[in-house]
Amino acid sequence: MKLETILKLPPVLLLACATLPAGAYAQEAVQASAPSYQDFMASSAAPMFALNNLWILIATALIFIMHLGFATIEIGLTQSKNTVNILFKNVFVVCMGVFVYALWGYNAMYPGQGWLIPGVLAIGGPIPDHFSSATDIALKMTPAGGSGLTFWTNFIFQALFAATASTIVSGAVAERVRLSSFMVYATVLSMVLYPIAGGWGWGGGWMNSGLESVFGKPFHDFAGSTFVHAFGGWASLAAVLVLGPRLGKFTADGRIKPILGHSMPMVLVGGFLLFFGWFGFNGGSVMSADPQTVSRVVVTTALAGFCGGLTSIIAAWRILRKPDLSMSVNGMLAGLVGITAGADVTGVWGACAVGGIAGVLVVLAVIFFDRIQVDDPVGAISVHGVCGVWGTLAVGIFGDGSFLTQLVGVVAVSVFAFCGSFATAWLVNKAMGYRVSREEERTGLDVGEHGQVAYPDFQEAGPSL
Amino acid sequence: MKLETILKLPPVLLLACATLPAGAYAQEAVQASAPSYQDFMASSAAPMFALNNLWILIATALIFIMHLGFATIEIGLTQSKNTVNILFKNVFVVCMGVFVYALWGYNAMYPGQGWLIPGVLAIGGPIPDHFSSATDIALKMTPAGGSGLTFWTNFIFQALFAATASTIVSGAVAERVRLSSFMVYATVLSMVLYPIAGGWGWGGGWMNSGLESVFGKPFHDFAGSTFVHAFGGWASLAAVLVLGPRLGKFTADGRIKPILGHSMPMVLVGGFLLFFGWFGFNGGSVMSADPQTVSRVVVTTALAGFCGGLTSIIAAWRILRKPDLSMSVNGMLAGLVGITAGADVTGVWGACAVGGIAGVLVVLAVIFFDRIQVDDPVGAISVHGVCGVWGTLAVGIFGDGSFLTQLVGVVAVSVFAFCGSFATAWLVNKAMGYRVSREEERTGLDVGEHGQVAYPDFQEAGPSL
Amino acid sequence: MKLETILKLPPVLLLACATLPAGAYAQEAVQASAPSYQDFMASSAAPMFALNNLWILIATALIFIMHLGFATIEIGLTQSKNTVNILFKNVFVVCMGVFVYALWGYNAMYPGQGWLIPGVLAIGGPIPDHFSSATDIALKMTPAGGSGLTFWTNFIFQALFAATASTIVSGAVAERVRLSSFMVYATVLSMVLYPIAGGWGWGGGWMNSGLESVFGKPFHDFAGSTFVHAFGGWASLAAVLVLGPRLGKFTADGRIKPILGHSMPMVLVGGFLLFFGWFGFNGGSVMSADPQTVSRVVVTTALAGFCGGLTSIIAAWRILRKPDLSMSVNGMLAGLVGITAGADVTGVWGACAVGGIAGVLVVLAVIFFDRIQVDDPVGAISVHGVCGVWGTLAVGIFGDGSFLTQLVGVVAVSVFAFCGSFATAWLVNKAMGYRVSREEERTGLDVGEHGQVAYPDFQEAGPSL
Repeated sequence: MKLETILKLPPVLLLACATLPAGAYAQEAVQASAPSYQDFMASSAAPMFALNNLWILIATALIFIMHLGFATIEIGLTQSKNTVNILFKNVFVVCMGVFVYALWGYNAMYPGQGWLIPGVLAIGGPIPDHFSSATDIALKMTPAGGSGLTFWTNFIFQALFAATASTIVSGAVAERVRLSSFMVYATVLSMVLYPIAGGWGWGGGWMNSGLESVFGKPFHDFAGSTFVHAFGGWASLAAVLVLGPRLGKFTADGRIKPILGHSMPMVLVGGFLLFFGWFGFNGGSVMSADPQTVSRVVVTTALAGFCGGLTSIIAAWRILRKPDLSMSVNGMLAGLVGITAGADVTGVWGACAVGGIAGVLVVLAVIFFDRIQVDDPVGAISVHGVCGVWGTLAVGIFGDGSFLTQLVGVVAVSVFAFCGSFATAWLVNKAMGYRVSREEERTGLDVGEHGQVAYPDFQEAGPSL
Repeated sequence: MKLETILKLPPVLLLACATLPAGAYAQEAVQASAPSYQDFMASSAAPMFALNNLWILIATALIFIMHLGFATIEIGLTQSKNTVNILFKNVFVVCMGVFVYALWGYNAMYPGQGWLIPGVLAIGGPIPDHFSSATDIALKMTPAGGSGLTFWTNFIFQALFAATASTIVSGAVAERVRLSSFMVYATVLSMVLYPIAGGWGWGGGWMNSGLESVFGKPFHDFAGSTFVHAFGGWASLAAVLVLGPRLGKFTADGRIKPILGHSMPMVLVGGFLLFFGWFGFNGGSVMSADPQTVSRVVVTTALAGFCGGLTSIIAAWRILRKPDLSMSVNGMLAGLVGITAGADVTGVWGACAVGGIAGVLVVLAVIFFDRIQVDDPVGAISVHGVCGVWGTLAVGIFGDGSFLTQLVGVVAVSVFAFCGSFATAWLVNKAMGYRVSREEERTGLDVGEHGQVAYPDFQEAGPSL
Repeated sequence: MKLETILKLPPVLLLACATLPAGAYAQEAVQASAPSYQDFMASSAAPMFALNNLWILIATALIFIMHLGFATIEIGLTQSKNTVNILFKNVFVVCMGVFVYALWGYNAMYPGQGWLIPGVLAIGGPIPDHFSSATDIALKMTPAGGSGLTFWTNFIFQALFAATASTIVSGAVAERVRLSSFMVYATVLSMVLYPIAGGWGWGGGWMNSGLESVFGKPFHDFAGSTFVHAFGGWASLAAVLVLGPRLGKFTADGRIKPILGHSMPMVLVGGFLLFFGWFGFNGGSVMSADPQTVSRVVVTTALAGFCGGLTSIIAAWRILRKPDLSMSVNGMLAGLVGITAGADVTGVWGACAVGGIAGVLVVLAVIFFDRIQVDDPVGAISVHGVCGVWGTLAVGIFGDGSFLTQLVGVVAVSVFAFCGSFATAWLVNKAMGYRVSREEERTGLDVGEHGQVAYPDFQEAGPSL
């Protein structure tokens, strides 16, 4: 994404574009003099355009499958009596998330010139219905505007990103959130809150030239350590604070009673699918197939993820006195979250350091949140919140960013996500109740909300359906 | 596939091709004057050719993984005592399906000039053994013949499609079909019946200029709402009618007793893998990486799938009075099946409508088939048959197709699939028995057919092996 | 990989490269006169370069997900009490494997001119930290050096290959190997032994011009039947011999008692994910997106895998008197391993023969190793060792290789892998004990090593954590 990346276009494309009439940034401003699609595809810029465009579509598919990763790691780390509920939430969130992004979010996040409060807030609205030569090449095929993809490819790629934020929260509130209340909450988060924060950076808002004029450098969040992960992580914390811990997680005398996840294989399936999807999440955020940048991003991303796995193994072994599978998977994810802000500006061994430190941080953070009795069944706050902040700051250490810019940016988004999420959860709680009854929580949300169990051949049957 | 798509080639490719000597459509008719591979790859058409070709190969891999999706959703929606049997069927079907397509089906479906009854029936035969410059560039690299892929890429892409039809039936007949009988049935379906119907449309048969001369427009089935999904769905209905419902599904006094699927996580894994593979199933059916068309197809496909999920959630919640996980997953698939015929000609909000209506239809259809005592454990007839028909007709509503052409086409293929499947199942039933014994059905096909259980640590052990 | 493939570059690329100043093979030898990245990307070679590079990165992602395939098939074929342990090993192996390849292995395997013993042994070391125009285009963008990818893409692709070897062994030693001992063993195998053998062939060592000068043709291992699979398979045998069979597998009077795998669905998930990843494993080994070669490789690979599935079904049905699910999955994998050496030089029906014979071989081999009381829970020796040898030799039968060259090469690597693995396992056994206690083996390694069970809701709980 990411306005800054348009300055790193493959020169051949820029050269080719420079010979074409200039267009404008947003799709509504396409000029009559824009080249026709046919003309453009007959030019020598066509193969690179087609390649860039295809890569982002493939990356979109990879990001889609991350939603299966989120769903499976979340059921793996929770109890079998809540499995149907969690799976259902995940189906809903991705379907809703993409749909409301088409209906509202995309235009709220990328307003072009159409800000309500410049650089801060914009009104959304539906994307255009018609595919046309103009929208097919307008947004991104101009010297000023971009890196060679169609408007539509940009939309669907961003839409899958948008669906991710609510999915992160889904894990933190699992096993006690009321289904219909969560559906309302998640819709507000994905439709209203996520595009606002995203617009501040990726949509051309105040974090770009605004922060640059103060600290000398604009905010750098390559693929979303801040706008996706820190956003989702601190939104999770707020939602968890409104909701409270699961029954029995903390005893009256302050001890922590682990509630075991019911399927370690699903934890691994989820972790590896998320890693797999990250090739598209980060690799696609280059917004082109430029060999230099995509190679670099894939290498730094993979190394950070693997190093996060290694250091979390070591850290958990020292602290918990055992080789801990969940921690090792969360360590890989922590490394990936960590490198996401700076995958395009970090060196090989810097990436190992960013990921490796994230792998230790996530172990400490999981223990810390348990100690202060914040109950987060999947570690979402630690993985996405803590390591999202770490990764953003690391751009100012291992990359070429300004530490102060990075700090201001990630704090602003985190505070906004926390407050927006808190307000939404609080209102939903007032209006409809955010949490299931104690009895339903004990029986399990599968029977309580869905009248069904996940494994009927192995669990006691639910009530007659 | 898809003769019509060759008219939408990237102009740069057509331009480049136009400078080369013309070749013929089918590989057997390559002229001596065709350019050498070396010469072609030295031309400026090479990068686009390589890109198109690679995209279809990647799409092939995505379609392959749909077979894992089919297998997992099918075991998820059925009982644990039949799991090994279902998994085995799915391994067999994909292995057999591709092999017989190489041996016979491909040439029966794409006969070029070699029809036995013009536009209706052709004899198949093995694909050529030797890779050569001629077959590597002949089929698709000519101005008349195509969109820039090798003969071999076209073959393997189509072969994975061919394997899908039998897999759809596999779900409908699960939990009571005899293994060896199904293996014979599936071989006939994939090898003989599927290529005949496919040839009518994609192979250049009567549905193209034939239907166009009558109704003004040729039949439009972009990626297989008719040729894959309606075909598989109505073949399923016939097979189920020959087979009868599972024991205990319908009581003597006409009540419906749900037989619960044993693993909801596997339902989600299957549904999401199918969605993931659909990026290749539809995206690859563009038969090129043309940015305009591929972007559009991915956007319409994804939106239809997500809207199908949303409306099926709403419909099931209203009708069944609960948020239903299986329905939500089948709703996503219904939306995907629905958009498959017109993903290249539908607008953004048209795609939402096509998918959204499919999501409601699938809920109603599942209830309907239960009411009329047609026992389809996975909802294959509803998802693939009903929504395949809906999607085909929708091209005449939301796209630019002729409603009558679409109606005639989808009815013809559905009737052919139903009758062909019925005759095959009936003959197999006469010859070897299509169904397992009542005792085996009660014990489970895993022990009965395979002497094994799927989860030995959690189920009672089978007989000593 | 694969020096031989650089001779098959797309001519357009070679033409473009030929106009640029010549560079050297290894990254350390980049000349000051190498073209700048900017200049290169402005040339007409840029689109093909970008395409080739992107394809290998996508292939890398596909190979990554094979590690999930290995993990899931391995837990599926073993007992639930050892599941956490196996999952943990797989996380560790892929994290460690890539990290040590960056730290040491890559430079040991591709020493360029820097051999310690020419063609036989080289010292490794860390890859460079800095991404720069030189390393971004130097290695592979020169007429002498390659097929158009960045140094970094080549590194990460090879690194994921390197992680595979230890993963193969992981399956063979499952259910009784001590965790920390295996971690040491696997590190030595991935870091030290794998790069040595790989350097003999892919790194430009003695198997190339050395064997050619003796037998007339160099050793041909397209994507690793020898260097990955035979290496991993025979290393497995050695490790298993040091370790001994699982308790209860063979009775005192010499009978074989099957130890059942606990989840057949996971076996299928693993098998299909491995097949899916093989599209990248073999397809990416073309090291470019050259349409002729990539199409061919995907077609031969897929057909061999499917034919391996079919023949293993038939063979197992005849010999074991039942349709065997595990054998059918191992048959697909056997076919894939078999075609891996010659996917680029085999015809369509030759590929079916290579895969089909592998499917029979694997059934016979599994039975054979059981008979001689070699206990390999997942069949790793049969699938990777036996069929790796078969596939390598098949290049001399169905391809255009020299049978003698192939024989000498695969025997040399197999003997080296066996001896190196045996020595490592033996030393580890002496130093720290390679096997868990009998009591721990009976209780399960999950509780013994990790203090945790994989399915707490369905298994008896482990000790208090």
